Amino acid sequence: MTSTEAREKAVLAAVRERREVVNEAIPEELPVQKPERLYEASRYLLDAGGKRLRPTILLTTAEALADVEPLSEPYRAFPTLEERGYGRTNDTAHVPETIDVMDAAVSVEVIQSFTLIHDDIMDDDDLRRGVPAVHKAYDLETAILAGDTLYSKAFEIMLETGAPSSRTVEALEVLATTCTKICEGQALDVTFEERDDVTPEEYLEMVEQKTAVLYAAAACLPAILLGADDETVDALYGYGLDIGRAFQIHDDVLDLTVPSEKLGKQRGSDLVENKQTLITVHARDQGVDVESLVDTDDVEAVTEAEIDEAVAELEAAGSIEYANEMARDLVEQGKDRLEVLPENEAHELLAELADYLIERSY
Amino acid sequence: MTSTEAREKAVLAAVRERREVVNEAIPEELPVQKPERLYEASRYLLDAGGKRLRPTILLTTAEALADVEPLSEPYRAFPTLEERGYGRTNDTAHVPETIDVMDAAVSVEVIQSFTLIHDDIMDDDDLRRGVPAVHKAYDLETAILAGDTLYSKAFEIMLETGAPSSRTVEALEVLATTCTKICEGQALDVTFEERDDVTPEEYLEMVEQKTAVLYAAAACLPAILLGADDETVDALYGYGLDIGRAFQIHDDVLDLTVPSEKLGKQRGSDLVENKQTLITVHARDQGVDVESLVDTDDVEAVTEAEIDEAVAELEAAGSIEYANEMARDLVEQGKDRLEVLPENEAHELLAELADYLIERSY
Repeated sequence: MTSTEAREKAVLAAVRERREVVNEAIPEELPVQKPERLYEASRYLLDAGGKRLRPTILLTTAEALADVEPLSEPYRAFPTLEERGYGRTNDTAHVPETIDVMDAAVSVEVIQSFTLIHDDIMDDDDLRRGVPAVHKAYDLETAILAGDTLYSKAFEIMLETGAPSSRTVEALEVLATTCTKICEGQALDVTFEERDDVTPEEYLEMVEQKTAVLYAAAACLPAILLGADDETVDALYGYGLDIGRAFQIHDDVLDLTVPSEKLGKQRGSDLVENKQTLITVHARDQGVDVESLVDTDDVEAVTEAEIDEAVAELEAAGSIEYANEMARDLVEQGKDRLEVLPENEAHELLAELADYLIERSY
Repeated sequence: MTSTEAREKAVLAAVRERREVVNEAIPEELPVQKPERLYEASRYLLDAGGKRLRPTILLTTAEALADVEPLSEPYRAFPTLEERGYGRTNDTAHVPETIDVMDAAVSVEVIQSFTLIHDDIMDDDDLRRGVPAVHKAYDLETAILAGDTLYSKAFEIMLETGAPSSRTVEALEVLATTCTKICEGQALDVTFEERDDVTPEEYLEMVEQKTAVLYAAAACLPAILLGADDETVDALYGYGLDIGRAFQIHDDVLDLTVPSEKLGKQRGSDLVENKQTLITVHARDQGVDVESLVDTDDVEAVTEAEIDEAVAELEAAGSIEYANEMARDLVEQGKDRLEVLPENEAHELLAELADYLIERSY
């Protein structure tokens, strides 16, 4: 086993441990109640799986901030920074000893699930996480309504952490502006499909809004709720933006380089569907005729040979290496921002999680 | 002019005056910004009109609570109850002199608009407020996304009133649970279409969730934000639930009794589409074969004579009078709950608004 493999194995174990506790918390926060069909549809994708990367980052950030051993404190009654002697305020009169950071973690995962349900309708995608998309498993009406229900439930859950009001207000501001930006990013992505002059800066801005803001929210929310200072909140937000953008760029690379069987969908489908990625934006800049790389616009009809040829051309233009380098730079920048945190095991894990996001092969 | 007509005219003037200031505030809170198409679609229905009944109730309740002359205080800098000498707390140290109740009013209208956009997709309705539904004027993707954007914007706007954190948290709790209940009510309504044993109690519960909770939120939010006591908040919430249910029941009666030209759609369309209303639920209880009242299920194909005959049968069963009586009782009950308010002109107007909801002919 190489050292990269060993590290990846350790990170995956850490993710798995947190995923298990998050998976227990989801039905507690979102029980299937009347009307059952609505709540079953709302839970459908959440129950179908997912790595729980955003909740993992949130819970690990809480541990790093409070300077406690990973998995040593119950997430449902997690010590505030005042309690740990790291508080930003001397006035601890109204600050509870513990808050429920699991609520914040579930809230973020619920937002993620809501966006997936509505995105699948918008893209008319049939499959998600190996199961039919919600609008296929149920119907359009139920899928729209399930997404809408998760949306308000995420706010309800975030209101239950037991944090002081001023911190709850700040957390809800982050949640609300994050949701708005996700919508804006999705709308921007749609307009890109009709343009052939998207710049790398524009692409990165879109990815920031569509994908990275939720990582940023996951990283900064425990800082807000536990009572860290503004500098720490901002640094963690920046860490999330950096690794979230790197995550998306790496996803775009995987779409070209990982065999279809392993990817769980046709390799190169972004090219077939003319989706803009950092790779195609760069290639176009280098004079590559991106629209002609793949003739067909039918994912079922494309051949592996066609994809191989297209990827070779993108490699020759340096576009894949450009994307890889950008992702690496963003991860390094993100890791540097972690210096606001105390040196501890959870801090280390957050750095390893950042590396994992661009080293994973699926 | 009869006294009812004179009163209706006065109420309509009061609604119109508030509608004008609400219409000015909407573009301030929701400017068309990048990406323009998304924000244009988000504003489309809001700009197409609407009576602004919920914001009117919210702003008038604020005036009644603060015991000020209608339209005498700026809604953007409205005196808190502490400032007016009616506060629930002696500790006014952290309470600002004024808060922005217009933000709360716009937030509620934005939620209403979001639900209309998504409802029109779910029902595949072509027209709303005399213009094409958003998913017709734009497309399905944009309509889903416009609704989602309004959803988070409503929370963002509610976060800007300048109220103390503890009150803002309470207001956001009301907003989030209201949205969840609207989704639950909508899901319940869908399940009713496949049932023929819905009871009046079940129907009223559905209407409470789908329609009345937003009236309840509109009525109680200024009490929360301005600092009224819990008894007042609860009484105003109850007023909203009562008049909101009455509003919906009256809507169902209008669908049967107002000529199509005036209604802006085919009279009796609820019957044609087999929609459950309090009227059909009652009629079925009386032994009427409701499903056979109208043969066709095509709104285009039904004749006025068929509708006349169906309405006559519902009248003979006492079902229309039953619904009218229920609406009147709810309005009287709602008006009684207003006794927590000081006696003043705004209080009077809230009672007249309640009457208007079941006296209006469109």
